[in-house]
Amino acid sequence: MIAAFFAPIAGEAGLGLRDDAALLNAPQGRGLILTKDLLVAGVHFFENDLPGAIARKALRVNLSDLAAKGAAPLGFLLGLALPPDWTPDWLKAFAADLAADAQDFGCPLLGGDTVKTPGPLTLSITAFGAAPAQGMVRRDAALTGDALYVSGTVGDAALGLRLRLNREEDRGWIGALGAENAAFLADRYLLPRPRLALIDALGDHARAAMDVSDGLAGDLTKMLALAGLTADVALADLPLSQAARAALEAQPALIETICCGGDDYEILCAAAPEKALALEAGAKAAGIKLTRIGQARRGAVTPIFRNAKGEVLRFERASFSHF
Amino acid sequence: MIAAFFAPIAGEAGLGLRDDAALLNAPQGRGLILTKDLLVAGVHFFENDLPGAIARKALRVNLSDLAAKGAAPLGFLLGLALPPDWTPDWLKAFAADLAADAQDFGCPLLGGDTVKTPGPLTLSITAFGAAPAQGMVRRDAALTGDALYVSGTVGDAALGLRLRLNREEDRGWIGALGAENAAFLADRYLLPRPRLALIDALGDHARAAMDVSDGLAGDLTKMLALAGLTADVALADLPLSQAARAALEAQPALIETICCGGDDYEILCAAAPEKALALEAGAKAAGIKLTRIGQARRGAVTPIFRNAKGEVLRFERASFSHF
Repeated sequence: MIAAFFAPIAGEAGLGLRDDAALLNAPQGRGLILTKDLLVAGVHFFENDLPGAIARKALRVNLSDLAAKGAAPLGFLLGLALPPDWTPDWLKAFAADLAADAQDFGCPLLGGDTVKTPGPLTLSITAFGAAPAQGMVRRDAALTGDALYVSGTVGDAALGLRLRLNREEDRGWIGALGAENAAFLADRYLLPRPRLALIDALGDHARAAMDVSDGLAGDLTKMLALAGLTADVALADLPLSQAARAALEAQPALIETICCGGDDYEILCAAAPEKALALEAGAKAAGIKLTRIGQARRGAVTPIFRNAKGEVLRFERASFSHF
Repeated sequence: MIAAFFAPIAGEAGLGLRDDAALLNAPQGRGLILTKDLLVAGVHFFENDLPGAIARKALRVNLSDLAAKGAAPLGFLLGLALPPDWTPDWLKAFAADLAADAQDFGCPLLGGDTVKTPGPLTLSITAFGAAPAQGMVRRDAALTGDALYVSGTVGDAALGLRLRLNREEDRGWIGALGAENAAFLADRYLLPRPRLALIDALGDHARAAMDVSDGLAGDLTKMLALAGLTADVALADLPLSQAARAALEAQPALIETICCGGDDYEILCAAAPEKALALEAGAKAAGIKLTRIGQARRGAVTPIFRNAKGEVLRFERASFSHF
């Protein structure tokens, strides 16, 4: 199975997957960034998702972690626990799209392990990246006064998940979206876009960063609380897609899903005031939208989100949790 | 959960597990060896195994891979997919024994991921090691004429598994074993002993190596076939424990389990004739028994095992497979 499906897509560093272990030569003088994400069918993706979409998501959520640390991808290991009903066709499609992403993101397959499971399909990817020359961009290093930014748009994937679930109570706003907006949101849930184009700007100019995987509100809390900080965020400053705006117009209560839903895989980062303009310029040069959403300040409370009237929003659950 | 159970056992490189990613500084000029093994409850261990035994096995099977490559442990990432019925007590015991092994083997926890699963408990460990200065000891590099060795004793863990399963047809030889032998075999199944003491000897003197996880016959086939080689193995030369000898005496058909069963986690290696004595001396100095079991020769057939009468053994299944 390994020879048939995975060896052809392994990089030279993977030794053709003929060994139990892989060899990685980290770039001289650069630290190695390690990241590991597990994905379980029925928890992190749908069992009936296309195999290629499952493969791409599993790799991309790890690449998103590398991007947030300012790390350039070097390769990955794939752990695959297959349920009894796997078929060669399924695995072929899975491997084909995995190979395409590995190629596109310059992140070769180095090795891994394949086992059977009586449970759901489970993927474990460990990805490796070269730390920026200045060192890894940490999650806990923000300081008071730092400008806070988020890349891309937030909330799309969480809306895409609700769209996919298509519950009775969501039919109203889903119906009002229009086909194009609906397709956009569904795709944003299915296929994360790791913001690797940002790594140079982050390595050069960010003080702290993380990727937004569990919802903006919760992840902002995580990043700032580690440094004894908080922030005030005006909803009007959040970068929303046209599709998210359409959904919000049809159903204002979706603001909680937008702020607290998961799977954005955007970059949340903090920059010292004197570095903020350079970070913005770096993101612009990289073609990635980066929006300033607030400023870090000392405080033990969770970040405060306010609507256009200045009212404080109370979220039932600040952070989406897969757990 | 991470802060309560895992942060206390993380090394400094794990940044207190406060980040989504970990940073590893590989030793100057040494390649980094990567290995990843997945373990699924009901497949690779019993669901009712003690949490500490599960933790230790998961780490040790990875350390065994590092040992086979001549690599000194640097750290590991833990991926944990927990079923709904996990309890804090279970996790506390799991983490305590994991911490003890991490300490004993000098392999700190660097980071990881914890998710929920509707399926069985699933562990994914990725371990990192520093390659020998001479480079990784590969699996596919044996040459004709090389002396073949295996560490420790073979077959114990596979017998221990049958003991644990305690099937009707096995009651005879199990009853004949005696308590001490039975306890020895059960323990060999439960708790692998990664042969890290061998890494210097392997790095200095072995041409090829792998760990025996899927049975000696199958793994010897894998190692030699990759190099277009085969070998003749006399059963009389196989290193067997006193307990395995007792089992074999009570039930001669167990020879297939001994040769083809899995979970030995011993080291199988090949050394050039002029390096054989140095390898033996290195193992002796390290306190690890290393037994010469044959010599590699050119050939496209699977290695041939002969009994004391010179008869060729035919195994129904040369290699144990978890898959």
